[in-house]
Formats: sequence, structure tokens, C-alpha cells
Amino acid sequence: MTRLMQKRSRKTGLPPGTAVHIGEKRTERTRLQLLHYDAAQVTERELEGVEEGVNLRPGTGVTWVHVTGVHDVALLDRLGRGFGLHPLVLEDISNTDQRPKFEDYGDYIYVVLKMLHDGTQGQEIKTEQVSIIFGKDYVLSFEEAEPTVFDPVRERIRAGRARTRERGADYLAYSLLDAVVDNYFALLEQVGERMEELHGALLASPSPRMQQSLHQLRREMVLLRKSVWPLREVLGGLERGQSGLIGKETYIYLRDVYDHTVHVIDTIETFRDMIGGLMDIYLMSLSNRMNEIMKVLTIIATIFMPLTFIAGVYGMNFRHMPELGWEWGYPLVLLLMATAAGGMLLFFRRKKWI
Amino acid sequence: MTRLMQKRSRKTGLPPGTAVHIGEKRTERTRLQLLHYDAAQVTERELEGVEEGVNLRPGTGVTWVHVTGVHDVALLDRLGRGFGLHPLVLEDISNTDQRPKFEDYGDYIYVVLKMLHDGTQGQEIKTEQVSIIFGKDYVLSFEEAEPTVFDPVRERIRAGRARTRERGADYLAYSLLDAVVDNYFALLEQVGERMEELHGALLASPSPRMQQSLHQLRREMVLLRKSVWPLREVLGGLERGQSGLIGKETYIYLRDVYDHTVHVIDTIETFRDMIGGLMDIYLMSLSNRMNEIMKVLTIIATIFMPLTFIAGVYGMNFRHMPELGWEWGYPLVLLLMATAAGGMLLFFRRKKWI
Amino acid sequence: MTRLMQKRSRKTGLPPGTAVHIGEKRTERTRLQLLHYDAAQVTERELEGVEEGVNLRPGTGVTWVHVTGVHDVALLDRLGRGFGLHPLVLEDISNTDQRPKFEDYGDYIYVVLKMLHDGTQGQEIKTEQVSIIFGKDYVLSFEEAEPTVFDPVRERIRAGRARTRERGADYLAYSLLDAVVDNYFALLEQVGERMEELHGALLASPSPRMQQSLHQLRREMVLLRKSVWPLREVLGGLERGQSGLIGKETYIYLRDVYDHTVHVIDTIETFRDMIGGLMDIYLMSLSNRMNEIMKVLTIIATIFMPLTFIAGVYGMNFRHMPELGWEWGYPLVLLLMATAAGGMLLFFRRKKWI
Amino acid sequence: MTRLMQKRSRKTGLPPGTAVHIGEKRTERTRLQLLHYDAAQVTERELEGVEEGVNLRPGTGVTWVHVTGVHDVALLDRLGRGFGLHPLVLEDISNTDQRPKFEDYGDYIYVVLKMLHDGTQGQEIKTEQVSIIFGKDYVLSFEEAEPTVFDPVRERIRAGRARTRERGADYLAYSLLDAVVDNYFALLEQVGERMEELHGALLASPSPRMQQSLHQLRREMVLLRKSVWPLREVLGGLERGQSGLIGKETYIYLRDVYDHTVHVIDTIETFRDMIGGLMDIYLMSLSNRMNEIMKVLTIIATIFMPLTFIAGVYGMNFRHMPELGWEWGYPLVLLLMATAAGGMLLFFRRKKWI
Amino acid sequence: MTRLMQKRSRKTGLPPGTAVHIGEKRTERTRLQLLHYDAAQVTERELEGVEEGVNLRPGTGVTWVHVTGVHDVALLDRLGRGFGLHPLVLEDISNTDQRPKFEDYGDYIYVVLKMLHDGTQGQEIKTEQVSIIFGKDYVLSFEEAEPTVFDPVRERIRAGRARTRERGADYLAYSLLDAVVDNYFALLEQVGERMEELHGALLASPSPRMQQSLHQLRREMVLLRKSVWPLREVLGGLERGQSGLIGKETYIYLRDVYDHTVHVIDTIETFRDMIGGLMDIYLMSLSNRMNEIMKVLTIIATIFMPLTFIAGVYGMNFRHMPELGWEWGYPLVLLLMATAAGGMLLFFRRKKWI
Ligand SMILES: [Mg+2]
Ligand SMILES: [Mg+2]
Ligand SMILES: [Mg+2]
Ligand SMILES: [Mg+2]
Ligand SMILES: [Mg+2]
Ligand SMILES: [Mg+2]
Ligand SMILES: [Mg+2]
Ligand SMILES: [Mg+2]
Ligand SMILES: [Mg+2]
Ligand SMILES: [Mg+2]
Ligand SMILES: [Mg+2]
Ligand SMILES: [Mg+2]
Ligand SMILES: [Mg+2]
Ligand SMILES: [Mg+2]
Ligand SMILES: [Mg+2]
Ligand SMILES: [Mg+2]
Ligand SMILES: [Mg+2]
Ligand SMILES: [Mg+2]
Ligand SMILES: [Mg+2]
Ligand SMILES: [Mg+2]
Ligand SMILES: [Mg+2]
Ligand SMILES: [Mg+2]
Ligand SMILES: [Mg+2]
Ligand SMILES: [Mg+2]
Ligand SMILES: [Mg+2]
Ligand SMILES: [Mg+2]
Ligand SMILES: [Mg+2]
Ligand SMILES: [Mg+2]
Ligand SMILES: [Mg+2]
Ligand SMILES: [Mg+2]
Ligand SMILES: [Mg+2]
Repeated sequence: MTRLMQKRSRKTGLPPGTAVHIGEKRTERTRLQLLHYDAAQVTERELEGVEEGVNLRPGTGVTWVHVTGVHDVALLDRLGRGFGLHPLVLEDISNTDQRPKFEDYGDYIYVVLKMLHDGTQGQEIKTEQVSIIFGKDYVLSFEEAEPTVFDPVRERIRAGRARTRERGADYLAYSLLDAVVDNYFALLEQVGERMEELHGALLASPSPRMQQSLHQLRREMVLLRKSVWPLREVLGGLERGQSGLIGKETYIYLRDVYDHTVHVIDTIETFRDMIGGLMDIYLMSLSNRMNEIMKVLTIIATIFMPLTFIAGVYGMNFRHMPELGWEWGYPLVLLLMATAAGGMLLFFRRKKWI
Repeated sequence: MTRLMQKRSRKTGLPPGTAVHIGEKRTERTRLQLLHYDAAQVTERELEGVEEGVNLRPGTGVTWVHVTGVHDVALLDRLGRGFGLHPLVLEDISNTDQRPKFEDYGDYIYVVLKMLHDGTQGQEIKTEQVSIIFGKDYVLSFEEAEPTVFDPVRERIRAGRARTRERGADYLAYSLLDAVVDNYFALLEQVGERMEELHGALLASPSPRMQQSLHQLRREMVLLRKSVWPLREVLGGLERGQSGLIGKETYIYLRDVYDHTVHVIDTIETFRDMIGGLMDIYLMSLSNRMNEIMKVLTIIATIFMPLTFIAGVYGMNFRHMPELGWEWGYPLVLLLMATAAGGMLLFFRRKKWI
Repeated sequence: MTRLMQKRSRKTGLPPGTAVHIGEKRTERTRLQLLHYDAAQVTERELEGVEEGVNLRPGTGVTWVHVTGVHDVALLDRLGRGFGLHPLVLEDISNTDQRPKFEDYGDYIYVVLKMLHDGTQGQEIKTEQVSIIFGKDYVLSFEEAEPTVFDPVRERIRAGRARTRERGADYLAYSLLDAVVDNYFALLEQVGERMEELHGALLASPSPRMQQSLHQLRREMVLLRKSVWPLREVLGGLERGQSGLIGKETYIYLRDVYDHTVHVIDTIETFRDMIGGLMDIYLMSLSNRMNEIMKVLTIIATIFMPLTFIAGVYGMNFRHMPELGWEWGYPLVLLLMATAAGGMLLFFRRKKWI
Repeated sequence: MTRLMQKRSRKTGLPPGTAVHIGEKRTERTRLQLLHYDAAQVTERELEGVEEGVNLRPGTGVTWVHVTGVHDVALLDRLGRGFGLHPLVLEDISNTDQRPKFEDYGDYIYVVLKMLHDGTQGQEIKTEQVSIIFGKDYVLSFEEAEPTVFDPVRERIRAGRARTRERGADYLAYSLLDAVVDNYFALLEQVGERMEELHGALLASPSPRMQQSLHQLRREMVLLRKSVWPLREVLGGLERGQSGLIGKETYIYLRDVYDHTVHVIDTIETFRDMIGGLMDIYLMSLSNRMNEIMKVLTIIATIFMPLTFIAGVYGMNFRHMPELGWEWGYPLVLLLMATAAGGMLLFFRRKKWI
Repeated sequence: MTRLMQKRSRKTGLPPGTAVHIGEKRTERTRLQLLHYDAAQVTERELEGVEEGVNLRPGTGVTWVHVTGVHDVALLDRLGRGFGLHPLVLEDISNTDQRPKFEDYGDYIYVVLKMLHDGTQGQEIKTEQVSIIFGKDYVLSFEEAEPTVFDPVRERIRAGRARTRERGADYLAYSLLDAVVDNYFALLEQVGERMEELHGALLASPSPRMQQSLHQLRREMVLLRKSVWPLREVLGGLERGQSGLIGKETYIYLRDVYDHTVHVIDTIETFRDMIGGLMDIYLMSLSNRMNEIMKVLTIIATIFMPLTFIAGVYGMNFRHMPELGWEWGYPLVLLLMATAAGGMLLFFRRKKWI
């Protein structure tokens, strides 16, 4: 089951700005992918450590360092010193229970967001924390584990087709944000399909098993909401912000990804509404079913109780019961019973129970 | 069933600003209707392609290009280059899962909204995306399919009766917005009527079939809300905006259509409230019905169980049961039974069950 | 039943600013009452048409034209031209499905609000649209039908007792607004009384008929809310507004009527809360009643089923049943039955069911 | 029962600014208590009328006039003219259905709030309207009836211990506000205790009587909320306000009483939440109880119906029923019955019903 | 049970700014721990009284006075005079029913917050009030009782490892705030775990005992919310504030602890949502169970009632019942019974009840 919170209590009592890895360790090896590009050329390297980190910036063009795995705090520390990052930033990168936010540190901007993956096979949604830092001529990005959602961006830079090559670090940072947000749509599509299936199944014939699916859906929407909602402020803040690090043309692109985020949030809220509607269908079907069951019981009891009573009367052993001696007594009683039963059936038909 | 989301995941991994058609293809042929007018004259053409598109603007008067069908991205691309549109705009036009918004690009303003159609025969509401772009002397409008809601506007321009002929592109753009919003009222009227019918039917005699109609209504209101709500910001933004493209007189008209939108939203919220009320009626009627059923069962059981017991007693085969030999035993027991039954009936009458 | 929406679809496709009467026609004759006054004197006329309309303003003092009936669009048109009104204003006056709003057109201010009447006899609330336009030295007011809520204001002007005579058109407009809002309190008082009665009745003994009253109340509150809520913005806007048409002293009075409106809205929200509470009482009483019914059934069944079984055992026809031959068999079995029944009664008493 | 609204309709049709007493008349005599003080001395008088009212202000120090009873509009009128109050202020003082508000009239500030009393014996909350007006060197306060919550303030001024003596009218006005708000805490404590008691009782054994207490609590919270909520704006407005009548040091005190009000409102909201929780406990207990009742019924029926059937079979009068002649027939059938009953009991135990 | 409110009514009638201890007395002895430090050295003392309090500030470095126990108002008073605190501040320190807030008094800033402890063994959450005051070169902190959450901060200062030693009073104050907020995460982790356990248990087999746990959780979330929610404003206010007492670098740290608070609040809201979901699971399981019970009853009754009736018929004592004389009468009736029972079973199987 998706955890509601990471075990964050390990940090209690530590001084502020102490980087401690919070969360599950999702990869063994920490991997650093270095990409340097300008309009003319691209160079790529996979780094072993960050000793060389300090020499990472060649003067012209844009440097992109992508780190997979955030549990090696020593490595993060060296990287942080190489790029002059504030200790609070390093702390947040390795704390995967951070809520989405953006912070402007003047020389660089720090953005945290959540990737959403649906787990393999089973339909469990998982969140993964992504950190993006960008300055004048560099971008640092951090993911908890492979596979990375940033591969298409890297591919486009290599191929040289995309606008990215002609633009600065701000546009690269935007492209990464956009890649994360685009990914939400895919996830919501899947959730939407599961919801529609459940809807159909509920209308056909509700079962307690569906109740669990409903609850699972609802729970996931609560988690999704918690992950995505703050992104609205993040991207709204970036778009409205006055940072000198973001070029005027890039603001138009940030507005676009902001718009995507609002769309995602609207969809989540709509889904929540719909799940509420499905729960009402289920509850009403339970009530309808109960009515159905009680009707059967009442019809049976109402027909057979009087009949059994009549039979009981003529099963009494009084010596003086003249009807018992009548030749037509038995058929007459059977007729009486049939009449009583018929009357009840008419009564039920008039009540529209049958 | 109305889709909750379009298949948007096809875009995952593509560079930003890549126009890809998202949504159902609703028309085969893409159709371009060109209209050029000023106070004195009107010319109309139906274009084959957009090669000629670059020459579309004759210098004076207003040019209106209306495009039906948004899946031909190549055509959109040529048109976009002809009018100097940003790639993000072209991307949004062909993505029919775009939420309503407006964006000011300086030279032109881009507005997205949703048309609402109720499907033929069945009562399914469908949404269609409408894009409107207007600059100093031109308006571009995009719909997914025929029929178009803009025909009355075109008719008025041809006839020369309307204010439109004497005014600029901003007034034409307003007229298109107004045509879309006016259309919402027609739809809401129909929904309101269905709701009133259902209300009457529920008060007369609730049935499980109505539960489905209720749920259908509720679902539609959720979708309507999602489509119309953002329009408030859109038109509020346009009205408050400081764009040099919109004349002072036109602002008064934008205020009018903003006011219509707020009215539409108020009505949607009122409908949601009312549907909640109808659900409560239905639920209470289920409970009332259950009480009714249980009362019948309880009355029958409470009357006949004691009677059957008495009959059972005198059906026992003990050798020494003096009552059995009494001459008036049988009538006395019948009297006892009648008394017991009468007492029960009195009890129920006092409880107001019968 | 109060309509949720007026048939507004007739307007679809018409150019903006086309006055079309929307709503029920509530009076046959359109009536114009002209009142001209200053501190010294008052003149009154009842106009036949508006040909004379252009000459309506004598130079000094305040002119008040009150129109009853808004379906004669030709007349409205002439009046509008006489006072230089914008076509959108005329359109809104004759569209009785307009939501409350205020608009500042520079030379004049246009205010729309809703009068609330409770229908004769039955307890149906009806809304009527009131439009008020005021300029430097004139006030135009529009109602759908007689009787008018403005008669006391007219009376005060005639009598010359009131402040109105010494003040300008802004104060007259305020007086009209105040008359409408004061009227809401009377209506809310009636609703409050119906609610209290229902409350008492529900506590005494709930019945399905009350459920309908509850639903009716709830529905009315939804409609009231829709009619009154926007008034908050209207009067808040007027009060905060910077219009040169409103004198400084009159702002204090506008603040007062704004305060009344907020009070009305608070009361509506409180009533909604209370109705929710009444619904909960009703629902709980249904549940309590069900428990009551089921208890009766269970008690009866639990007492008589074992007894009937015992009787059944001694009604069996086995040849070898020694008890049947015992002299005290019958009384012993009766004792056994009494014991069993007594035991059950004790069990129920311990469960506090009886 | 606490009235939801005062009979305000008496005012319909009256000119604005007409003082009319709205509400219950809670005292016979109108009483005026005059207090004049500065750092050096205090003088007190009880006035008969307000003829002398015009001479009330001796030039130095602070004058406090406290009026008990607001139904004598003639007296209010004379007082108002003595201190130069606006007619709208006098109207609001005598209208006890006024919502809390503050208004800055330049020369003086007018504040309305609600005192909350719990009725004697029974637990009904009553509201009483308090008006406070303060200018440069005077404070007027109005209450509907004795006893007054302002006695401790008066006591402190007499005793000369408190800061009040050294400060101006603004500090006295603050002290009165503080006295009213402090009083809310006492009331909320009582409500909190009743709620805790009810909570305990509900957990022990829910009864329909508690349902009424719950409903009563809920209703009171709705009324409390309506009375206290607007106070937030009132005190927030005073604290933020820029009135020259309030000294800089007094603002710190106003911030304190604002903080108290927010606390009161938070507590009311928390109580509402808690009452919702208690309602859920009650509803769930009803459901649990129903399950309990139905289990008893089902267990009894399921055990005795098959047994009675078996007895019925051997009570049939067929001539050829070999079992009836067997010597061990009767004991065997009893054994069969015991086995059937035991099987049922096992079944219920496995279902954890017993 | 956690109290909803402290007994605050003791203060009614007292002059503003009177320090009175409100709340439980949680420690006997009031303890003062004095710490003086700069980058070079640290001195510590435990004070007996506050006579020496006036001499507490040696001129350079930072002075931290930590007070455990807030019920000794005389001591607070002397301390307050030593540091020049406003009487309203002293009043709030000893009133442990104060809601979280911050107030800027120019020379110093006063912050109130709530510590949350879970009680030993049982799972009751307790709140404790923490006050922090900081000026240019001193910090005063107040807790109700031992143990203190500030020990790790003290430890870090002693050890000299932390940034604290090189920074001013503002950074120390921040460190204390951070220590309190970090503590919330630990608590929420525990709540989250209890919730997950309950979730699992509810899915496995719901029981009335869980209903109480659910209610307990819900109640705790209401209290948590009330304690933590205002902290958002507090820290947001501090971060946005323009106080000269807070250095530019410290603002970055305040932003961090603000971010933590928002995260805590998001988590509380998510938990509330989840608890709502758990309640729905429980309610649905009650309904499912009821259906289950009623099904058993209906199946038994529907099978045995007709059978018993048939047996009753052939138990009648009519002289002329030809079937009774048939040789195969008894087996034929048994066959008839078996057929009827089988038919019922088929009916139930088709209804999917068995
Ligand atoms: Mg820490
Ligand atoms: Mg921290
Ligand atoms: Mg952090
Ligand atoms: Mg995570
Ligand atoms: Mg990854
Ligand atoms: Mg749905
Ligand atoms: Mg994109
Ligand atoms: Mg886009
Ligand atoms: Mg679409
Ligand atoms: Mg179309
Ligand atoms: Mg309704
Ligand atoms: Mg139109
Ligand atoms: Mg229009
Ligand atoms: Mg209009
Ligand atoms: Mg109307
Ligand atoms: Mg009228
Ligand atoms: Mg109520
Ligand atoms: Mg409800
Ligand atoms: Mg009035
Ligand atoms: Mg008034
Ligand atoms: Mg007033
Ligand atoms: Mg009152
Ligand atoms: Mg009083
Ligand atoms: Mg509770
Ligand atoms: Mg006090
Ligand atoms: Mg106080
Ligand atoms: Mg205080
Ligand atoms: Mg406390
Ligand atoms: Mg402590
Ligand atoms: Mg859950
Ligand atoms: Mg619910």
C-alpha cells in the first residue's frame, strides 16, 4: 500500500540544514549524467564521483547534471559545494517527503515536484520526488531511481532538432518541468478508464468487491491531490516571478505548463466528484437490494402465515368441531386458503411489489 | 458515454509546441471560410488550402477566417505561419482536451472555450472545443465540426444590419464569444426541464430507473461545470485586461458576456444543489418504503403467530386436556383468537401503523 | 412550481443588444408614472406613451419615471433613446432572467435586482425583476407588474416629510434599493416561521408529508440564495464605487443597505444550515422508527416461535410418546411454555427493548 | 425556543433612518448611568431623562453614558441629537436584529455586537444586542436589559486601580468590547461541557433523547456562529482602521481582543466538527443496534423454523407413516431436532453472530 | 479525554493584561535555565529566582532564558519587567488556552505555538503551550512542563558544532520554532500508522470497537487541526514580516520552517479525508452485513414456511381427506416438500443470494 508519509521522524533533533535521506532507497548506485551543449555541439559524460564536479562548467553553453538516486548525502554535499547551494536545498533534495515548492535563491532557483508512476501489474500509484535547480548556465536534476522521465528531453538535445539547443538553462528547466507534468495526463487517463469500467460494472450489478475498488480509487485521488495541488502554486509562482534567471520568451512556456497543471487539478477534482457519485450508486444499490430481500420475505410470510394458521385451526383436537365432519369441509378449506393467498397476491400487485 | 478525458498520452515525450491532434476526429474535410468586410462592403471565399493564406489580409477592414476541423496539423501550421502565431497556440488549437483560457500574446489574443451540444435523441451532452484568435484587423476561429454556432454572426455581417460592420476585429471576436455563451442557456433550459420532470416523477412514485437518471444528471453537471467554470476567469480576464487590441466600447460588451457567464455558472451551481435535493428525496423514499414493507411483515407476523400458537396448543395430543371435551371449547377458542387479533389491531392503530 | 430558469433560448442567434422580452408577461398594459420634485414642489403625471419622453427633464429638481411592465420593447426603446441608454441596458431590462448586478456607464448607473413575493395562499415564492437607472437628475425604475413596492417611497415624496425631497437622484435611487431589501426581511420572517412550525411538528411526530415540506423549503432557499447572493456584490460595489453620481452623504446610506443585504444573506445561510438539521432529525426518526418496528417483530417472533414449536412436538402422532399419557402432561407443558415466554421477556427487558 | 429572526417586517415602508424598536422589550424602565472620570477623580449620576443630556460633557476627562433598554426611541432621539449622531445609528441601536458591525462616522465610531446569555435553568442560549459609540472624549453604551456585563469595568474605574483612569475614551471602549468577548469564553466552556457529557453518554448507551440534545447543540452552534462570526470583521476592521480616535497604544489592546475573537470562532468551528462526529456516533449506533435486533430475530427463526417443520411432518395424519409406529421414533426425532438446532448454533458461531 | 477548552472563565471580569494561569498545572517547580553564548564561549546557569533577572544581559553575545512552568505569575511578572515586556504578553504566556499567533512589539517579537505529545501508553494526544520571545540579543522561551523539546538545540550550542553559535538571537528563535515543528512529523507518523492499521483491520473484518477508534482518530484530527492550522499564519507572517530583528539570512530558514508547517497541514487534511473514507468503509460494511443477515433469514423463512404449511394441511383432522388414506400419500408429500424446497433454492441461486 502506498505510504501516507515517509519516516521523517529520524530527523527530529538534528540541526536545520542537515541532509539525511528520508524515504525508501530505490536504487543502489548513484548515477551522474553530464551533458554540455550549445547551439553548435553536445558533449556527454557519465561521472564516477563529484571530485571533478567543481570543473563542471566550461564557460559557454549550458551544463545539465542529472543525478539518479538521492540517498548518498556525501555526494550531494560535494555537488552542492561545487555549485554553491544552500544547505537547506541539499536537505530537501534528500528528503523525499518534501512537498512540491519553488524557492528563489537569487543565483539559482530550486523546484521540487512529484513524479507519479503506477506500479507494475497491480494498480498502485507511486510517487517519486524530482528536484530541479537551475542557474544562469546550468541545470541540476535529481530523481530517486531509474527509469527517468527526462530521457526524451535528452534525446531531443542530442538530435539537435529541438528549440532547446538554441536556448538557455531556463528553457531546459522548463522542458524538464513539462516532461513531469505531461506524465500526469497519462496517469489520469488510466485512472479515468478504471473509473469508467467500475461505473459500468456498478450499473450492471454492484458487488462488495467493487466497494473496495471504489475505496482504492478514492484513496489514490487523495494522494494524487496532495502531490499535484501544490504544483499550482509552484508554477504560478514561477510564471509570475520576477527572476532575472528566466528569459521573457520562456515565461510564455511556463504559462503553458502552468495551464497544464491547472487542467490536471481540475481533472482530479472532477474525478473526486465522480467517485462520490459512484459511491452513491453503490449505497443506493445496497438499499435497493435490501428492499428487494425484505419484499421476498414479507410476501412469503404474508401468504403462508395465514394459511398455516387456518391449517392449524383444523388441526385442533376439539371433540366438537362440526366442520371436521362435513363432507366438503376439506375442499372448502382448501378453497378458503387459495382465496386468502390470491387476495394477498392481489394486494402485493397493487402495491407494485410483484 | 461522454469521455472524461481525451487520449492525451500520445503527446508524452514530444517537445513543447508540437501540434498533435488530440480527441475524436469529427469531420473528414477541413474547411476554411474567409470573410472580409468593412462598413461599405463584404467579400466571401471558401479556401482550398492556405498557400494563399499569407495574402489573406487586404490592408483595410476586418478579415475573418473560420476553420472547421482541427486535425490537419500541417494546414494549421501554414495558417499559423501566415499570421505569425506562437507554436504553443497551434498546439492548443489541435488539442481538443484544452481547458478554457485566454492568453495575450501582444499582437493577438488567443481564447479557448467549449461549445456544449446535447447529442441527437439520447440526452448525452457533448463538448466541442472552439478557439478564437484576434489581432488588430483579423479574427481566426476554429471549430471541430459542423454545424457551426457562428452562422448567425456571419449572417448578420452579410446583411449589414448589425453593429459588427462598423466595428473592428475586437467586436467580431466578442460576437463569437457571445454566440457560444448564449448557446449555454439553451442547454441549461433543457437540463432544467429534465430535472423538473424527474422531480415530479420522484414525488409521484420513485423507482430505481429514476436513480439512474439522477446519476446521469449529476454526472453531466460535473462535466458542464468543468467546461464552463474556467470561462469565468477567461472573460473576467479579458474584461479587466489592458490589451490595446480591445476598444473601450467593446469592453462594455465584454462585461455583458462576462455577466452571462456568471449567470450560467450560478445556474449550474443551483442545479447541483437541486440534484442533491432530488437524491435526498429518493433516499428518503427508499427508507419510507422499507418502513412500509417492514410494517406489513410485522403486522402479519404479530397477528398470526399468537393465533397459530393457540391452534397449536389445541392440536396437541395429550390424553388429559379437558378443554378439548367442552362442548363450547371450539367456539371459545375461536373467540379467544378473534380477541387476540383484535387487540393486536388496536395496538397497531394506536401506533398509527394502520 | 417556481421555474428554475426563464425560456431564454429565444435569444439564441440574435445580435447583442437586441431587446427581447424573456419571462412571463405579468401585466397587460405598460404603465408610466412620472414624478418631478424638488424641495419646494412635486408634480405627477401618468404618461400614455413616450413620445413626450424626450421632454421629460425640466432642468431643475429630480425626475422619476417608474415603468410597470417590461414586455413592450418598442416603448423601452423610445425611452432608452430619450435618456441615452446603451442598447445592452435595454436588453437586460426586458430580460427578466438577468442576475442582479450593477454597471456604471459614466452618465448613469444601472442596477438590477430581484423582488421576492410569496404567492397568494400556497407558499410558493416568486421572483420579480426590478431595474433601477439613475443619472445626475433622473431615476428610471422598472417592475414587471403591480403591485409596486415603491409606493411608500412615492407617498413620502408627496407628503414632503422625508429627506428625499431635499436630496438628489442618488438618494431616491438609494430609497428604492432600500425598499426592495427591506422587503426581503418580511419574506424571511415568514420562511422562518414555517421552519419553526415544521421543527415543532417533526419533534412531535415525523410524517412523510413533512418530508415534502422540508424539500420545498430547501428548494426555496436554493432559489432565494440565487436571487439575493449577487446583491452583496452589487451593493458592495456601489458603496465602494467612485462614481461622481453618488454624493458623499448618500454613501453612508448605501453602507446601511449593504449591511441589510449581508444580514439577509447570513440569515439565508443560517436557514440552510437549519434545514439540514431538520433533515437529519427526519432521517434519524425514520431509523428510530425502523428499529421500533423491528423490535416488535423480533419480540413477537422470539416469544411465539419456541412456544409453537413445543406445541408442535406434542402434536406429533407417534404412538410411543409417554408424556402424552401423563395426567399432568398438559399443565406441565403449559408451565414450560409460560417459563419459556417469561425467560424471553426477561431477556428483552435486560436488553432494554421493552 | 430561541427566535431565528426578530419581527422586523414592522419597518417595511418606513423611511430610512426611522428608529423603531425591533425585538422583545426586555426591561420596563430605561435607565441612564452617567460616569465622568479623569486620572484624578470620578463622578457618577443616574439620569432621569436626557434634557440634561446636552450638558453631559464637562470639557476634560472621559464621559461614559450607559443606557439600559433600547425601546424608548424618543429618549434615544434626544440623546442622539445631544451627541450629534446620524439617524441611521439611532435606527440600528433600537433594532435588536442588527448584525455585528462597526462604522466610522469620522467624529465617532459605532460598534454593534451580541452578548450571549444562557437562559436560567434550561440550557437555551439567548442573544442580547450591545451598541457602543465612542468619540474623542465620550463613550455611549447600550444594552437591552439588566444585568449588565459592564459592571466590572465600572468597578475598576471607581476603584482607580486600572489603567482605564489614565487613558482616553478609546481605551474605555476597548474595555467594553473586551468584557463582551471574555463573556463568550464562559459560554463556550459550558457548551463544551455539555458536549463532553453527551459524548460520554453516547459512548455508554445511545438513546433517542440524546438525539434531541444533539440537535439542540447543533442549532445553538448555528446561532452562535451567526452572532460571533461577523465580530471577526468588526474587530479586524477596528484594528486595521486608521481612525484618529484610537491611540497607538490602544491598537495593541484591540489586537488582543481581535485575537480572542478569532479564538472563539475557531472554537465554534471545532465544536461544529465535534457535533458532526457525535451525530455519526449516534447514527452508527442506530445501525449497530438494528444489526443486533435482526441477528436475534434471524437466530430464533433459523433455529425454530426447521424444528417446527419436523414436528409438523410427524403431526400429519397419513395412515401409512411407518416412523410413527417405531418404538424409538419419538426419541429419534427429538435427537434429529437437537442435531439440527446444534448445527444452526455452530453456523452462527462460525459467522461470529453469537 | 483531551479537554476541548481550558477553564478560561476564571478571567471574566478581570482587567485586560492581568496574568492569570489558565490550564492544568503540569509541574511543581518553576525552573529557569540561563544560557549565554557567542562564537567564542558558552556559559550556563540555573537560576533560583529572577531578582538577578535584571542583570541577565552581559552586553555581547546572545542570552537565552528558558522557563519551565508558567503558573507562577509573580515570577513571570518580574521577568517581564526585567525585559520590558507588555502586560498582554505576560497574560498570554500564562494562559495556556491561547491560540498560536505572532505579534511584533517593535523591540521584540512574541510567538505562541502548541507542542503536541502523545500521552504515555494510551493513544491520547496532548497539547502543551510554548511561548518564544526574541529581541536584539536575547531569547525567552516558556514551556508548561518537562521534558523539553529544546534540549537538542541546547546540546548543539554547547557542542559548538552548529551554525547557532555564530548567529544572533533571531537564528536561535528560528531553531526553537524548527524544533517544535519537526516534532509534529513524528506525531503524524504515529497517527498515520494507527490509521493504516485500522484500515487493514476494517478491510479484514469490521467491528464496533473499530468504530470507536475511528471516532477517536477523527476527534484527534479536529484538535490537531485547531492547534496547527494557525501556525501557518504565524510563520507566514514572520517570513513575510519586515522586522528589523530578523536578519536576511534567517528569512531563508524561516521560509523552510514555514514550508514544513504547510506540509504538516496538508498531511492533516489528507488524514481527515482518509478518515472520512474509513468511515464510509465501516458504514458500507454495516450495510453489507445487514444484507447478509436478512438474506439468511429470508432464505430460511422462504424454504420452511411453505413446507410447514403443507405439513399443517395434512395435520388437519377432517374426516374426509382422501390423500390421508393413500398408500403412497406420505412419500408423495415428502417428495412435494423436497421439490418446493429445491425450487426455492434454485430461485435463490438465480438471485445470487447463495
Ligand atoms: Mg531539524
Ligand atoms: Mg527543519
Ligand atoms: Mg526544508
Ligand atoms: Mg515520496
Ligand atoms: Mg525515475
Ligand atoms: Mg458518476
Ligand atoms: Mg506540454
Ligand atoms: Mg498548451
Ligand atoms: Mg473535448
Ligand atoms: Mg461545430
Ligand atoms: Mg430539489
Ligand atoms: Mg446574443
Ligand atoms: Mg448577450
Ligand atoms: Mg446583458
Ligand atoms: Mg424572474
Ligand atoms: Mg411589482
Ligand atoms: Mg435545526
Ligand atoms: Mg446529509
Ligand atoms: Mg426602510
Ligand atoms: Mg433600512
Ligand atoms: Mg441600519
Ligand atoms: Mg437579538
Ligand atoms: Mg444586559
Ligand atoms: Mg467527536
Ligand atoms: Mg478581561
Ligand atoms: Mg482579554
Ligand atoms: Mg491576549
Ligand atoms: Mg493547552
Ligand atoms: Mg515540555
Ligand atoms: Mg481511506
Ligand atoms: Mg457521505
